[in-house]
Amino acid sequence: MQVKDCFVSAPGKAILHGEHAVVHGKVALAVSLNLRTYLRLKATATGKVCMNLPNIDTFLCWDLSELKQLVPYSCAKREELKCLDPELLRRLREFVGVTNGKLDTCNMATLAFLHIYLSVFGSGELPSLTVSVWSELPTGAGLGSSAAYTVCLAAALLCASGAIPIPLKEWDHTARWCQEDLELINSWAFQGEMIIHGNPSGVDNAVGTWGGMLRFLAGKIIPLSRVPLLRILLTNTKVPRSTKVLVARVKDRINKFPSVLPPVLDSVDAISCTCEKVLSEMTSEPITGEHYNILEELIDINQHHLNVMGVGHPALDTLCRVTLTRGLHSKLTGAGGGGCGITLLRPETDSSVVQSTVQDLTDCGFDCWETSIGGPGVQQHSRLSVKDEVLDVLNQY
Amino acid sequence: MQVKDCFVSAPGKAILHGEHAVVHGKVALAVSLNLRTYLRLKATATGKVCMNLPNIDTFLCWDLSELKQLVPYSCAKREELKCLDPELLRRLREFVGVTNGKLDTCNMATLAFLHIYLSVFGSGELPSLTVSVWSELPTGAGLGSSAAYTVCLAAALLCASGAIPIPLKEWDHTARWCQEDLELINSWAFQGEMIIHGNPSGVDNAVGTWGGMLRFLAGKIIPLSRVPLLRILLTNTKVPRSTKVLVARVKDRINKFPSVLPPVLDSVDAISCTCEKVLSEMTSEPITGEHYNILEELIDINQHHLNVMGVGHPALDTLCRVTLTRGLHSKLTGAGGGGCGITLLRPETDSSVVQSTVQDLTDCGFDCWETSIGGPGVQQHSRLSVKDEVLDVLNQY
Repeated sequence: MQVKDCFVSAPGKAILHGEHAVVHGKVALAVSLNLRTYLRLKATATGKVCMNLPNIDTFLCWDLSELKQLVPYSCAKREELKCLDPELLRRLREFVGVTNGKLDTCNMATLAFLHIYLSVFGSGELPSLTVSVWSELPTGAGLGSSAAYTVCLAAALLCASGAIPIPLKEWDHTARWCQEDLELINSWAFQGEMIIHGNPSGVDNAVGTWGGMLRFLAGKIIPLSRVPLLRILLTNTKVPRSTKVLVARVKDRINKFPSVLPPVLDSVDAISCTCEKVLSEMTSEPITGEHYNILEELIDINQHHLNVMGVGHPALDTLCRVTLTRGLHSKLTGAGGGGCGITLLRPETDSSVVQSTVQDLTDCGFDCWETSIGGPGVQQHSRLSVKDEVLDVLNQY
Repeated sequence: MQVKDCFVSAPGKAILHGEHAVVHGKVALAVSLNLRTYLRLKATATGKVCMNLPNIDTFLCWDLSELKQLVPYSCAKREELKCLDPELLRRLREFVGVTNGKLDTCNMATLAFLHIYLSVFGSGELPSLTVSVWSELPTGAGLGSSAAYTVCLAAALLCASGAIPIPLKEWDHTARWCQEDLELINSWAFQGEMIIHGNPSGVDNAVGTWGGMLRFLAGKIIPLSRVPLLRILLTNTKVPRSTKVLVARVKDRINKFPSVLPPVLDSVDAISCTCEKVLSEMTSEPITGEHYNILEELIDINQHHLNVMGVGHPALDTLCRVTLTRGLHSKLTGAGGGGCGITLLRPETDSSVVQSTVQDLTDCGFDCWETSIGGPGVQQHSRLSVKDEVLDVLNQY
């Protein structure tokens, strides 16, 4: 079977407002982060399936004949695969060589790939192909890098199999799928996330699929139709932290101060709702400085609230202080206790200011990217629309 | 008429929790600040009334014959003087030489003194005496320096007139008055505050009179019976600010974020109530490190909330950061936007840590005092119980 080549990308994810509060029944706003994961799928005639993940130094090839042996366990129809097939997963783990113990990033990426590949093609002939992936996202930083990866895998493999059409027209640079196809991509990506994370919320793959902004409340994910693209700096303090420990810390603090903390969660809920309203206004009326003033104030207030919840960190204080000296406002994003922060840039913020700020933050030992939030979800690219640096990496394979 | 000499002192005031929130119907906790104002009243035979206020370079003397001309306007009985006599005030202003315009500190102090002196003695013979006052409190810093002054004036002049007894026994170092006498002192001090401030809340003179801690809610002031004495640092950032402007700023912010800010005020209310409960426990059970942990966490949370209300200032951030590097927790006290902050010290905090911290804060350009909160209100002193440095100053007059 000969498949069609394709080039896809999917964005990372940041929490704009509502991290931690969402655990206690409040609204959170998740946004796409335009640090993207790029995947190139190339048809080959080698009789092999190859996977190149240069970010994690993983380069693997399997003979189709090897993979065919796993097929009987993956022949269930796509529509029936709403949850993972434990028997397929067991066989895959055995095949990859991890029968128990904690999986490393390489093993998880391999399992997710093979699971989607075998499930998508298992009912027919297995195609010979090479998948190469390059990501701008740091891994393990709470930025949805695994979901961006599984969304790209799902989109490219579903396209290659013909389960969804190739949306790119001759004259397009990029193209997206219709709602129904996106739902299929999202459900396959979610399966990949289950393999990697065990019990994911589904927010990361939804953001990777739909992009823009999502409202997340009590397990329900609602994509928001129109949001403006916002320039930001994304900073990784590189301070390691455990989301589980931080979630437990907030819970302990609520138990310790049962009258002081709950109103703070209510205030965070109101911040998310106010922010959603302001962003919606920014798409329907002329954007003014006052819109940005409000966004900045909400960022500052929420950062104080997150400190009150006990998930701040001196490195995050440094981020806020350093950016504020340039007139820029920052908050942690995600679990906190270190990890990443976002800094809002205004449309008129001069690139010299941005460069100086990036330099200041780099001097603090942080990694820092100028990017945006609210951009598109998974999309197909023409070769021309992919940045040279990404092409340079992927063309090596 | 020959009066008895006496030596009295009254404490300043700090807001422990609830500043600004109190304006919006929430609880505030006001505590006595053991930076005190000392007053020595000396009977003389010079036929003069002299007032020495070395803090503000004010040294004034009046012949009794001059003051007698004002007496007809101050002959109302003490019990009837629940509010200011506008005619007496007008005559006093004319006498002091300020018929209109803004009063300076010297004029206000003079008016308050003469008003209480003439009111207390006006129905009988005016005594020849010298009043000398020295205060450890900075003026105009929101620390109740004017109330400490008027409380001292009221206590000393009421004592001198025989309206209240001299509580000090031969063997005492310090002594306080009974509840009824304190109420009389407080009501005269409040009149002095009205002359100085126009429309005071009554909290400052109540703290100066009763000391300890007061619960302030919807204009009602409730002295709390027992509170522990807490070691603190009091820091004056010396950043000038206007309470009126800051109160307006909080109101504007509530109007701007009508769903985000009110829960924060609720949280501040809960902080005040939790703090009151913990302080009460500290007087009825053995004090533990956990009591102090909670007090520190409440300080940190409230400082974040005050920043959210918009009354923070970079100088206050510096105070918090500098003290935290020594493991000490700080918050602004009073209006914010600069002004003063308090830093909680633990009983076991080593004096070397305290000295280093004071040095660090002094290096930031701040004034810093090691003192305590929750100490006694107005009291009479034996000469032996007054610090040498205060005696040295007051003995010059």
